[in-house]
This record gives sequence, C-alpha cells and structure tokens, in this order.
Amino acid sequence: MVDRQAVTTALAQQRIELPSWAFGNSGTRFKVFTQPGVPRDPFEKVADAGQVHAFTGVAPSIALHIPWDSVEDWAKLGQAASDAGISLGTVNANVFQDDDYKLGSVTNPDPRVRRKALDHLLACVDVMDQTGSRDLKLWFSDGTNYPGQDDIRARQDRLAEALAAVYARLGASQRLILEYKLFEPAFYTMDVPDWGTAYAHCLTLGEKAKVCVDTGHHAPGTNIEFIVAVLQRAGKLGAFDFNSRFYADDDLIVGAADPFQLFRILFEVTAAGGLAASSEITFMLDQCHNIEPKIPGQIRSVMNVQEATAKALLVDVDALGAAQRAGDILGANAVLMDAYNTDVRPLLAELRQSQGLDPDPMGAYARSGYAERIVADRTGGQQAGWGA
Amino acid sequence: MVDRQAVTTALAQQRIELPSWAFGNSGTRFKVFTQPGVPRDPFEKVADAGQVHAFTGVAPSIALHIPWDSVEDWAKLGQAASDAGISLGTVNANVFQDDDYKLGSVTNPDPRVRRKALDHLLACVDVMDQTGSRDLKLWFSDGTNYPGQDDIRARQDRLAEALAAVYARLGASQRLILEYKLFEPAFYTMDVPDWGTAYAHCLTLGEKAKVCVDTGHHAPGTNIEFIVAVLQRAGKLGAFDFNSRFYADDDLIVGAADPFQLFRILFEVTAAGGLAASSEITFMLDQCHNIEPKIPGQIRSVMNVQEATAKALLVDVDALGAAQRAGDILGANAVLMDAYNTDVRPLLAELRQSQGLDPDPMGAYARSGYAERIVADRTGGQQAGWGA
Amino acid sequence: MVDRQAVTTALAQQRIELPSWAFGNSGTRFKVFTQPGVPRDPFEKVADAGQVHAFTGVAPSIALHIPWDSVEDWAKLGQAASDAGISLGTVNANVFQDDDYKLGSVTNPDPRVRRKALDHLLACVDVMDQTGSRDLKLWFSDGTNYPGQDDIRARQDRLAEALAAVYARLGASQRLILEYKLFEPAFYTMDVPDWGTAYAHCLTLGEKAKVCVDTGHHAPGTNIEFIVAVLQRAGKLGAFDFNSRFYADDDLIVGAADPFQLFRILFEVTAAGGLAASSEITFMLDQCHNIEPKIPGQIRSVMNVQEATAKALLVDVDALGAAQRAGDILGANAVLMDAYNTDVRPLLAELRQSQGLDPDPMGAYARSGYAERIVADRTGGQQAGWGA
Amino acid sequence: MVDRQAVTTALAQQRIELPSWAFGNSGTRFKVFTQPGVPRDPFEKVADAGQVHAFTGVAPSIALHIPWDSVEDWAKLGQAASDAGISLGTVNANVFQDDDYKLGSVTNPDPRVRRKALDHLLACVDVMDQTGSRDLKLWFSDGTNYPGQDDIRARQDRLAEALAAVYARLGASQRLILEYKLFEPAFYTMDVPDWGTAYAHCLTLGEKAKVCVDTGHHAPGTNIEFIVAVLQRAGKLGAFDFNSRFYADDDLIVGAADPFQLFRILFEVTAAGGLAASSEITFMLDQCHNIEPKIPGQIRSVMNVQEATAKALLVDVDALGAAQRAGDILGANAVLMDAYNTDVRPLLAELRQSQGLDPDPMGAYARSGYAERIVADRTGGQQAGWGA
Repeated sequence: MVDRQAVTTALAQQRIELPSWAFGNSGTRFKVFTQPGVPRDPFEKVADAGQVHAFTGVAPSIALHIPWDSVEDWAKLGQAASDAGISLGTVNANVFQDDDYKLGSVTNPDPRVRRKALDHLLACVDVMDQTGSRDLKLWFSDGTNYPGQDDIRARQDRLAEALAAVYARLGASQRLILEYKLFEPAFYTMDVPDWGTAYAHCLTLGEKAKVCVDTGHHAPGTNIEFIVAVLQRAGKLGAFDFNSRFYADDDLIVGAADPFQLFRILFEVTAAGGLAASSEITFMLDQCHNIEPKIPGQIRSVMNVQEATAKALLVDVDALGAAQRAGDILGANAVLMDAYNTDVRPLLAELRQSQGLDPDPMGAYARSGYAERIVADRTGGQQAGWGA
Repeated sequence: MVDRQAVTTALAQQRIELPSWAFGNSGTRFKVFTQPGVPRDPFEKVADAGQVHAFTGVAPSIALHIPWDSVEDWAKLGQAASDAGISLGTVNANVFQDDDYKLGSVTNPDPRVRRKALDHLLACVDVMDQTGSRDLKLWFSDGTNYPGQDDIRARQDRLAEALAAVYARLGASQRLILEYKLFEPAFYTMDVPDWGTAYAHCLTLGEKAKVCVDTGHHAPGTNIEFIVAVLQRAGKLGAFDFNSRFYADDDLIVGAADPFQLFRILFEVTAAGGLAASSEITFMLDQCHNIEPKIPGQIRSVMNVQEATAKALLVDVDALGAAQRAGDILGANAVLMDAYNTDVRPLLAELRQSQGLDPDPMGAYARSGYAERIVADRTGGQQAGWGA
Repeated sequence: MVDRQAVTTALAQQRIELPSWAFGNSGTRFKVFTQPGVPRDPFEKVADAGQVHAFTGVAPSIALHIPWDSVEDWAKLGQAASDAGISLGTVNANVFQDDDYKLGSVTNPDPRVRRKALDHLLACVDVMDQTGSRDLKLWFSDGTNYPGQDDIRARQDRLAEALAAVYARLGASQRLILEYKLFEPAFYTMDVPDWGTAYAHCLTLGEKAKVCVDTGHHAPGTNIEFIVAVLQRAGKLGAFDFNSRFYADDDLIVGAADPFQLFRILFEVTAAGGLAASSEITFMLDQCHNIEPKIPGQIRSVMNVQEATAKALLVDVDALGAAQRAGDILGANAVLMDAYNTDVRPLLAELRQSQGLDPDPMGAYARSGYAERIVADRTGGQQAGWGA
Repeated sequence: MVDRQAVTTALAQQRIELPSWAFGNSGTRFKVFTQPGVPRDPFEKVADAGQVHAFTGVAPSIALHIPWDSVEDWAKLGQAASDAGISLGTVNANVFQDDDYKLGSVTNPDPRVRRKALDHLLACVDVMDQTGSRDLKLWFSDGTNYPGQDDIRARQDRLAEALAAVYARLGASQRLILEYKLFEPAFYTMDVPDWGTAYAHCLTLGEKAKVCVDTGHHAPGTNIEFIVAVLQRAGKLGAFDFNSRFYADDDLIVGAADPFQLFRILFEVTAAGGLAASSEITFMLDQCHNIEPKIPGQIRSVMNVQEATAKALLVDVDALGAAQRAGDILGANAVLMDAYNTDVRPLLAELRQSQGLDPDPMGAYARSGYAERIVADRTGGQQAGWGA
C-alpha cells in the first residue's frame, strides 16, 4: 500500500533548480528568435526565476552560468535573489565561448589555452565562495571533429590533470559535478562522451566528485534509468539536467517528448531514496525555450517534473517487489503502470492549495500580468542570450 | 574488365558545385569561431571558390544562398565569377532567418507569413532568371517542437500549395529541387523529414521537380545508397548535398566520417549512368568548416568526392553482375571491395597533370600564397556568416 | 468540447485484429522459451484468440500466417473461429522460411525461386477466397547482408514484377497491404525498408494497394505519427501492425515502451477519421510474447490500444485547432496533454460493463480457469512456433 | 617516418582467435539456413578452424563455447587442435539456453537458478584448467523486457555476487573477460549494457578482470575507438570480439560495414602498444555467417583485420603528433588518411609469401578442394548450430 501522506510530504519537499539561461534568448545555429520581455542582465533573470518559484513553490534556486551571469557584486545578486524569494545555486563554468577554445579548453593541445581554461574554472570556485553555492558543474564542449585531429588518450590525460587541479581547490562542502554528452558541438569525439568516462574520472578524483545526468545527452536507445540506478548504487549520482529530446540534444521541455521515460527515471530515483532530504542529488532543468515563452515554459517544466515524481511515488513498491520476486512479468509491469496511468493533477492541485498557492500555476501566471509588465518595461538594452 | 580510359574520361568530366556559405564563418549554437581572411561579401566568396576550381579543375560553379548572397547587380557577380574561372550555380532559398518564421515559413499557420515566404521563393526564381541558374533548391526549416503545436496534415496542405505556386513560376529549363531533413532546427516534426515526403510532393508537382539527397539528413542506420538507387530508378534524383556525419547533421567534410559509404553512394550513381553528361544530377557540397580552414577544407572535399568516384568507376561491373547472378555473396562483395581498396590517388594525380594542374592540390594551394594574401587584405568590414 | 457519448460509441465500435502467431512460442536467435499450454495447431490458436475477444469485446478476428496456419479444410477453421466468437482475418504470406529463400524470395536473383515465391503469394489469395479475408499482407524478409551482394535496382524491378502479378490476381474487394521494415533479417539492404518505398510501389499498383505501418520497423528517431498522417492524407494507409520497441523490432506489448507515442499515433488516426466505420485501416497486433504468458499478453495489448484510443478521442480538437491557429505553442500542447494525462480506465471499465463484460479483463481471464485448463489439456504434440 | 620492417614484423606476429560457432549454422529468429558440409561436432569445427590458419598464418587458436563445444575428453580435443595446427583458446560460458534462464541467469530473481548458472560458470573454469585456456569470457543475456519486470539495482547486486565467486575461482594466470551489449535478447534492460557497467564491475573485481569490446554491441553513433582508447589507458581492455554491423548486433564479417572504423579502432590499439607481444589484448572474431560460406567467411574476416592492422601500423605517428601539437586539423587528418588510403594488399601478399603461404588465401582455399571434401564427407548426423 502506498502511504498517500508520505507522497504529499515528499512532493512538498521537492526542490527543482532553474537555469538562468532558460530565461534568455536561445536557438539553433540557423536562427535565434528573439522574444519581447527577455531579461537583459542577471538581475532580471533572477526576477523571472522568482516568478516560477512563486507559482510552483518548488523551484527556490537559480543556477548561474559564468561568465554569462557574471556581476560586479555577487552579494547584490544574492540579495536580488533573496528579494525574489529564491537563492543562487549551482555555478556552471563556461569554457566554450572564446576563440581560444576552438581546439578545446582544458584538453587543448596548447598549454597556454589549457591554463586559461583552468584559471576560469578556479575563478568559478571563487564565485561559489561568494555565492555560497555548493556545486560546480563542469560541462566541456571539448572534442574533435575529424579522425586524427588530436590524440584521444592525451586529451584524457589533460582532462584528468585539470579536473584534479579544480578538485584540489574545492572547499570542504563544495562539489565538482561532471557532465557528459555524446556529441555537439564536437562531431567526432567528445572528451567526456558518456557516463562511463565521467564516472571513471569522478572515481579517481574522490568523494566530492559526482556525475551529472543530462537527459538529452545520450545515444539513441540508451536506457537512462539504468544509468541512474547504477550511478546511485555507486554513490556517484550528483545531479540531473532535465530536458527532453526526440533526436539529439533538443533541450525541449522536460517530459514533453517521453513522459513515461521521465517517470521511469524518477521511479529509480525515489526507489533509491534520491528524493530524501539527505539525498545528494540536485534536480535541475537545462532547457532552451527557443520558440515558446520562457517563464511559462519553465513553469510547465517544473510541473512536468512534479507530475512524474508524484506518479513515481505512487508506485506500490511492496506489490512491485512481490511480483518481481514471483517472476510475474505482467503483474510487476502492471503495478508500475497503475501508478503511471493515475491522473496526479488533482493531488498536486490540492498540495498547492494547502501551501497557499493557486492550484493552476500556468493560469495564475498568465493572469498575474507579469508577462505584460516585462514586455513593457524591458525596452532598450541587449537581451540576454548565448552570444554564440 | 574495367576500361581505364573511360574511367579517366569520366573523372575529367566530373563537376562538383561549391556552396558559397562554406567560405563564410559557421559554427554551432555554442560558438561560431571566426577565421582571418574570411570573405566579407559575395564577390570575395566567388573569388575563393575560384581558387578551389583552379587547383582541382572540377569545381566550376558556386551555389548561392539568398539573401546571404544578394547583390545589387547580378551581372556584376556573374562577371566576377567568370573572372574567377567559374559560374553561378544553384540558387538556395532561405526562409528561416526572420523572426516571422518562428512557427514556419510556407507552412506557418499565419497566411501573412506564408505569403511572405512564398514571395521570397518567387523572388529567388527572379534571381535565377538573371544568373542563368537552372536549379532552385528548397530546404525548409519548417516544423514543430512540441506534440500538438500544429496540425501535421494542414501543414502538408500548405506546403503543397506553396510548392505548386513556385513550380508554376519556373521557366522551361528551370527545376525545383526539394531537400528533406530528419530534424534540426525543428525537434518534433519537420515538414519534409524524409525522402518519401519529398518524393511524394515532387511526384505531384511534375517532371521539373526532383529530390535532393543531403548525405547528413537521415536517421541513424539509414541506407543512403538504397535511397539513391530508388530515386534514380524513379527518375527523381535531382541533386546531392555532400557532407559527412557521425551523429546528426554534422556537416563535416564529405568522406571524412565514412568513406566507404560515400563510395557505395557513388557506385549507385555511376552504375545508373548518373555521371553521364546527360545526367540530371547536380553534385554539390554542403558543409560547414567550423574549425578547419575553409578553402583547404573545400579542396579536400572535392578531392574526397573525386577519389570515391574513381573507386566507384573502377568496379568491374561485369564481374560483379556475374557474381550476383551466381549468388556468390563473397565473390560479389570482393569485386566491390577490390575497387574500394585500390589506391586511386596516383590515377587522379596523373589526371591533374594531364590537365595542366598540380598533382597535389592541397600543397599547391598552400604554396600559392593566397591564404596569406586574403588574411592581409581582408581587414575591416563584416565577415560573412549565417547571422543566426 | 469533447462529446463523451461519441467517445464511448467510437470505443465500442473499435476493432483490433489478433495475430495467430502471438499464441505460439516465439523468441530470439538465442533462445525460444517454451510455455505450457501453447497451441499445437491453428484450431487451438483460434480458441485462444476467442478468449481475448471474450474478455475485451473488441478483438473479433484473427490474422493467419501461411503456411504456419495452413489447414486442410478452411471452412472447418472458419467454423472453429465462429464457434469461438470470432472470424478469420488478414492473410499473411510467408516467403522466408525455406532454404530456397536464402538470397531472397520475389527478389531472388534466381528466376526459379522467384516463381516459387510468387506461386505461394498467389496461393495465399486462394486461401483468402476461401476464408473470406479482405487483406493480403505482404512482408518480405528479402534483402542483402553485404555491399555488392546483389543489384539494388534489379531487386526493385523484380519486386515490382511480383507485386503486379499478385495485384492482378486480387478480387474486387480484396486488398494488397505492403509492409516495410528497416532491417532484420537482412542487415545491409532490405528491399522494402521504409514507407517511401512501400508507398511508391502501392502508388504504381493502384487503389487496392495500401501500406502497413508496423510500429517497430523504423530507424531510431523516426516520427511515426508523421508517417501515419502523410499516408492518411494520401489515402494509402491500409493497416497497422501494433507492438512496441526500445531498440529494434523488439515486438513487445504495444504501448509498453512509449505509451505517449502510441497516443500520438492514434490521435492522428482519429483526427483524420481513421476509426470510422468507413475507414479502410485495419488495426492489428503483431507481437511476440517471448517471456510473458501469451493470452494475458494479448489482453493487455488490446487494453493498451483501447486506452490510447480513448485518450486520443478525448482531445478537444476545437480547442486544439484554435490554439494552433493562434500560434499558442504551450496552449496547443496543453490541450493534447490534458487528454493524455486523463485516467481513462474508469471510462473503459464502464464501457465494458455496459457491454456485459467484466470491467477488469485481466482479472476476469485469470479467474476463468482457462489458463489452467489448456496447460492440463494440451499435452503431447508439437507446440506452435516460428520453426526458424 | 614509418619503419616498414617493423610493420612487417608486427603483422607477422599478429594473432586472431577464431570462434568455434562461426563454423556451425546460424541465423535469425526468422530462419536458420543450413549449409552443406557444416561441422557436426567440436572436432570438425577444430578441423575447419585449422584451415583458416593454414591459409592465413595468423589464426592459431579457436575459442570454445560451453556447452556447445563440450566433449568427454578435453585432451583429445586439444590433440585434434594440435593436429590441425592450432590450439584451444578462450572459453565462452553459455547461460542463456535453458528454460530456467527465462528471467535471467546469475541475475535471476530465483536463487536456485542463480546457483545453477554460477555452477556452470565455475565448471567453465574447470574446463579452462584442462584446456589450458587463459580467458573465461562472460556474456550474459540477462535483462528484462518490460519496465518494472525486475529491480535494476538488485540485479546488479546479484551480478556482482556471481562475478566475485567466479573471480575467486580463477587460477593465477587466468582472466575473467566481461562483455557488454546494449540489447538483444533482452529488450528493455540488459544487466551489462555498456562499457561503463563492465568497467565498474571489473574495477571492483581486480587485476584479472578485463573488459571485452564487441564491435557490434553499441548504440548508434557510439565512438568505439574512444572506448578502446579509454579502456587501454585504464589498463582494462582485455579482448575484442570483432564483427561488423549496419543496424544492431548484425554479426557480419568484420570490416564489411565500415572498414574505416575498423582502421580507427586498430590505430588506437597499435598506437597504445596493444599489438605488442606483452599486450594483454585478445583479438577474436565473433560473427555469424548466416548466408555466406563459413570457412571463406572466416578467411575473409582474418584478412580484413590484417589489412586494417597494416594500415594502422603505416600511420606516421611522428608526423601525426607534430600536426596535432600544431593544431593543424587538416594536416593531422591527412596523415591518418594517407595510411588508410594505402593499398596494403601487396604488402600482405609479400608477407604471406615470405612465410611460405599462398599470397591469395581465398583463392588458395578455393583451390584446395577442402570445401568439396567436407560436403561429401559430412553426411548424416546433426549439424552444429545454436539450437535456439
């Protein structure tokens, strides 16, 4: 039997981190469509993130991207976050947007470029010291486009050297979160293409190094919940970057492409206690609202994670285990599907009402007039974006 | 027995069209790395394309992208091409780089946007009338990112309507070449995702409508030479966009990722007479030299196509047919592999020498000093690029 | 607004055909696990199929596979079906299980083998004449394993010739349904690998030739509902083979791998009127219950199709169209998801009760004792299977 | 500069192990086509393997599959191998062909089945003690077909327990080689789906546990040479199972689908010293000659590996390193391609002649009359196969 009260409690305590870059313009190499009202600086991003939390109640922090979100005075940005009802979260390093990084950052054949990249990573830890962020998330665009272009093993050596230097710089309660990605922007090798490579490096580094699973960074057919289960079993799952994909790293709204997969992933997480207060797993969104409005896009994303989590929590694990042990294939599957097929929207609406929130976050945001205000107010200046 | 003289003759007559955009800057959504010496206008692109032809002898035309390559005076650009030893080729329409096209161009739910897109396509035919181009190549970025976003069938109807209007505008010797692509920039549906869709539309349009096969636009595992064979059998193969890929539409140098696949494709082409002077197939490059130098990148690409073509022509089709008819699997495969395993570089070097060219195009270009000259000369101004 | 009564009516009229081979043993090249109680002849298969219909009420016919289901007296088998409350449906030809077909059946380089294969196809029409079946479903395992093994175009010619001969033999109300598949058992080329090839052949043949979409026969990333929409628009969608897959042609229970995809497919079907009595689309299952029990596997499959259909019918198409026309991406997606997120199990339970059926088909079958009876009764003899 | 003498020496010392099962019948779930002359027992397999070595000179051992190759008297089989000029090699355990293993072998929820599977694995080490084999290769078909069917983490625990028991049983010079596979025969989860999982288990086990890379066991788009490089860097690459694929685990002749990939893999191997006498890497074939003749299929496979190895050895690593360090993308790629484009067949023909072999192994075998003899002699009895 599922304890409904425990489900509600778990859902009430869930925390989903928002990416600052989801509020800026984004697109593909073909076109970045601009949207009116888009933030022009980190302060406006923080304000927008605060809206998402205001209407959902479970998104109380914003991840930063350095240097996109660099400010003179971090305390001031922290205060702005606090004013918006949220806090500053994970620091994401960016060593892919300088002409120097054409052949890589920390794996570049040129030692000067490697030093420059490492200095940036270390500077990100300086930022963490000021923002109070726990996690440094490292994703490297490093790789090669052509066979022979560089030495695969030598690049691993350079990567290991840089990671060790960053790891040594971490404070006692800080963590290094290593993200992997199959391809893009490099199209022959990526230096951290899969969970195995990230895991191996984290194992070498030590306890404070964990793996980040971005749900859009795998080869076709990859069973992501298997990776999640294996990393949890090894104590090495540090974070999720949630989004969804039909083809490549599409960065669509999480749960939009395959809600059943999201449910399966979250079931592995919850079944292993990954939602507990003591859990070391950070749940983040990492998406690009290329064509849809950004704040509603984030609200919908948060709701999709909530709904999948609610379904995962509704799985009758005792009945499931009994069917599994009995070798009852259809019975075990039916227990899982019974939870998935449940309409959990009423449950979440009730939860929101019990927290003093509107049961319908999308509608409440639309009615709030915030969208119209930012369109009217944010004129002039340069809209935030990737600046590719 | 293979007739070596016929092989040489066929290779001497091969024509490969260059894309003007390959000479400008390109990149991914993460970063466009700039390169010194990159053209700042269509005239400089034409000059660079002329270099590729000068050193290879088989690339005598340049494809244009409208509006990237729009000029006031088309005759003047034609003259510049002529001065560079080449001519203006296929006109590529671009209806994906305007904020209006966020939800599509010719398939947009808004009739005003559809009209605007169609007007651009018709204007491209006007350009063709002036440049003397035979082919209008249509690639649509149109599609949707989310299930339900738009009506799949309605978009097909709108597409059919626009194609019919363009087709009706074509001159007697002009053609409409329809390109398909699985995904990117749209991530749920593309309105022309596969050869079947392109074929069906071309069939409806008529004789002057043909399909373009871009070698990077397929799902993983797709057998491209099969599609080539089937389209040739149906008289509907109009053009190739050559490039290579490991993952998605990587737009790498053709032959760099899977030279054996390129050989198999070209074998289907040559076996069906697709290289003959009477052939209706246009052989184009469509690549992005994101990190490698652009003119050498194009020279290498042309050479890769030449080498694959040479190998394809060396297949002993009589022996192959005999083995096939006998059901001799390993024997038939061996005939094909015998050609593929041949080192055709000496043959091509000889051919170049017989044509008064340097046998080593890459070396000859490097020694020519052109690269240094354009770096020195092309200062100031705005480098050409996609402007995403 | 959705008309609930119309939804119920449509669900009550839905028809799903069962594959006879789903009741026999099946497996992989590594192992076929046997199950007690499996049918030993076509009559026992028909009896089992009758059970699926008895508990679901929407599966009143069984598809046959020739020669697996060949009997001396077709009238007798028809009577057995009638006794079981069902009828004989689509005839599936099998030209892949004879040593002669090693290099292909109708595309074999040897004319003698082609003739033999064609004779079998024609004999299948003879069977149809006796069973009263409307559809001849043709799936060809034909293809090649190695580049060069055979001539791709020549094989297309041979295929076209055979199809034309079969088509000419069809009666006025009979149809030829051509199925495509990307790979397996051939691993380099399949002669009908994709919907484009099937469509092109059906177009050449005429009105009575239609395409069958097997949901497990596509390349990774293929958007199946797009194909469904395009084929319906062209009047060429003849049948579905439902199953599900994570990797290749896994032949798992339909809806088990990606229930959202099944919903999207069925939404395209229903939106285009494909469920209407006048529809020409046959809805079949084509699955292998390698490890789960077969009759419950079929019942679950039928229920999964019903649930996805119910959700598809619940889409508020007026609201959807309005949002689409307004370019409201998130709004349109929300309309679709609102239907998908609905728990339709109560609706279907009510429907069953109104039809005099148990609201819980799985439980009712389990309680019926049929499973125990067939295990006890079906001793001795040779269990049905693929006989690979 | 490449030292041609060193290349020849390395090629002369290369060793490729043959799989006993490649000489028996194999196929797909659709059909196993039989071939005349196929071995009926392990002794005849050994004799056929001896032929492959006799004509190539680099295939002096045969891998065994237990129980397919179980014999009463292992010394007698060893003597037969010796008589055929070869030796007995790797022992491959088989825990997938018993009805008990329907839900898994060492990961089965039922402890009785796990014990049975483990006993078989331990018995395989007994065989190794008698045959003198160094390696126990473990591939598990274990996995699940449906979400919820079993507990992913619990299965990892069971797997770890079984592996530890086998590892403890190994002799001082024996090794455990763990193979991974993405899918088939399980279609939702495989318990060892990727190199990361195999690596993590081997790391836990200890020095004598190594990973086997089967070139057909990856997701689409996976960069296999990257995995090879990373495993070599970690000292964990134990063996290759060579074959080739276009789609799934097609088990085609190695080098037949993507010879350039095979070259890139072998370049990583040779560049890291993996071909040296001191190397711990076993090079095996693992293929299914479903439709082509088996002994010629194996000879061709061995030659394909030789040719790719020769090209890999011809890479001018000094020039490559210089170009890589200089960031010369096209130059570095050109060094690699220069070796790949070389026709190495004359070099290998010379090598064979210097070893007293016929320069043309395929032709020499065909002329030997062996094929005709086994067809004539091997009548009656049961042909070897997988017995699925």
